[in-house]
Amino acid sequence: MRVRMLVAYDGTDFHGWAKQPDDLPTVQGAIEGSMAKVLGFRVPLSVAGRTDAGVHARAQVVSCDLPGDADLFRLEKSLNRLCGPTISVREMQEAVPDFDARFSAVSRVYRYRLRTERFPDPFAFRFSWHVARSLDVEKMNLAGQCLVGEHDFATFCKKGCAGGTCRRVFSLCVLHDETCSEVETVSVWISANAFCHQMVRAIVGLLVGVGEGRRDLHAVEEALHAKDRRANSVVAPPQGLTLWSVQYGEEH
Amino acid sequence: MRVRMLVAYDGTDFHGWAKQPDDLPTVQGAIEGSMAKVLGFRVPLSVAGRTDAGVHARAQVVSCDLPGDADLFRLEKSLNRLCGPTISVREMQEAVPDFDARFSAVSRVYRYRLRTERFPDPFAFRFSWHVARSLDVEKMNLAGQCLVGEHDFATFCKKGCAGGTCRRVFSLCVLHDETCSEVETVSVWISANAFCHQMVRAIVGLLVGVGEGRRDLHAVEEALHAKDRRANSVVAPPQGLTLWSVQYGEEH
Repeated sequence: MRVRMLVAYDGTDFHGWAKQPDDLPTVQGAIEGSMAKVLGFRVPLSVAGRTDAGVHARAQVVSCDLPGDADLFRLEKSLNRLCGPTISVREMQEAVPDFDARFSAVSRVYRYRLRTERFPDPFAFRFSWHVARSLDVEKMNLAGQCLVGEHDFATFCKKGCAGGTCRRVFSLCVLHDETCSEVETVSVWISANAFCHQMVRAIVGLLVGVGEGRRDLHAVEEALHAKDRRANSVVAPPQGLTLWSVQYGEEH
Repeated sequence: MRVRMLVAYDGTDFHGWAKQPDDLPTVQGAIEGSMAKVLGFRVPLSVAGRTDAGVHARAQVVSCDLPGDADLFRLEKSLNRLCGPTISVREMQEAVPDFDARFSAVSRVYRYRLRTERFPDPFAFRFSWHVARSLDVEKMNLAGQCLVGEHDFATFCKKGCAGGTCRRVFSLCVLHDETCSEVETVSVWISANAFCHQMVRAIVGLLVGVGEGRRDLHAVEEALHAKDRRANSVVAPPQGLTLWSVQYGEEH
């Protein structure tokens, strides 16, 4: 039976999603290890977004194969007991046989949170980049629009990205959050068919330069056209980034 | 010069506000230690609410005496550098000479956050009690109203509370949060002139029993009248509790 699950995690204490050769704590390692404990055998997982160390996920999608008589309700409960509370497994359910969390995905949405107060907020610093100065949000939004469409994102890709550096960005928005509190926070939302390694963080790093006034409105376009990693050396820190959602076609 | 400051902290990794004899990490210890490092001498702090281990503060008020020529802007910056990001010092300013964060306070507001989803949320578990079942919020609110007014709160007080166990509760509300997300969260808001030790958490512990249907509507009133700690053994865990704000009279 092909199984699909939604997973949320606070990435602070993990060395990313993907298992590491040297037994560092990873989200994949934690879930696979717990499944092996419950089921008695190892189950390889497929994942929609291989998040980096320190990056979070609100609705990561994971797929795997389980025996047809597996009790998904009990397994979900056991996984949450073993992996919680920094990892939460939700909506574990049977999927169509050809569903694959990674290869069936048609788009991914990432959210990058920025905070502009003078000092870091003790309740937000784990999930945001505290830039500590005001940002020109409209200018950032304007500057980022040149990235929408199919482009070679070599400038925004860490070396050694599998499958080349061409990606299709569906949308990019820089918005003030609708918060319930009095504090102003800003989010960069990016949707694309797929992302190169550290692509969102490299884009946000440059956009923050524009928002702070250190870089001009055309800096993003110039960097994109350079197709060279050296054209943009600023990579935003991981804790501000969250894999927000993953979309699949109608057949899934 | 009498100085007043606002302090926010994530209490997760602290053994409460108050300094401990055995050098455990505390919020008071961190701030006093950092002030001594910057100023070259120790400054005793007065505080509005001595929060317990694991309890948070959004707007704790602290007062102290500093030399008249102290540069508050620089000191604030240094304290944030030394204590941040789990502690944030804000709005450090001169106060009237008789201001005392503890003794001038006329009321304190605490917020206790509850979460009702099936599994803990990786982004909320540090700041809420995950009760994992639905709560009858209206019933909790109704049951708690008998606590408003001046009462002997011995039932809800850990043994050895200084100054007796009579307190005046100004208001108690159990409310669904206005969240920006789709998840339903519940907060218990309590305002009082002062609180006995663990009073909010003992009240919340009983109210959750009412909300879950394990205790009836009159359980809170009966417990209050018993004036005996043994009438209520459930104390809600510390991580759900936040000192929200402190009020002072017009003269301050």
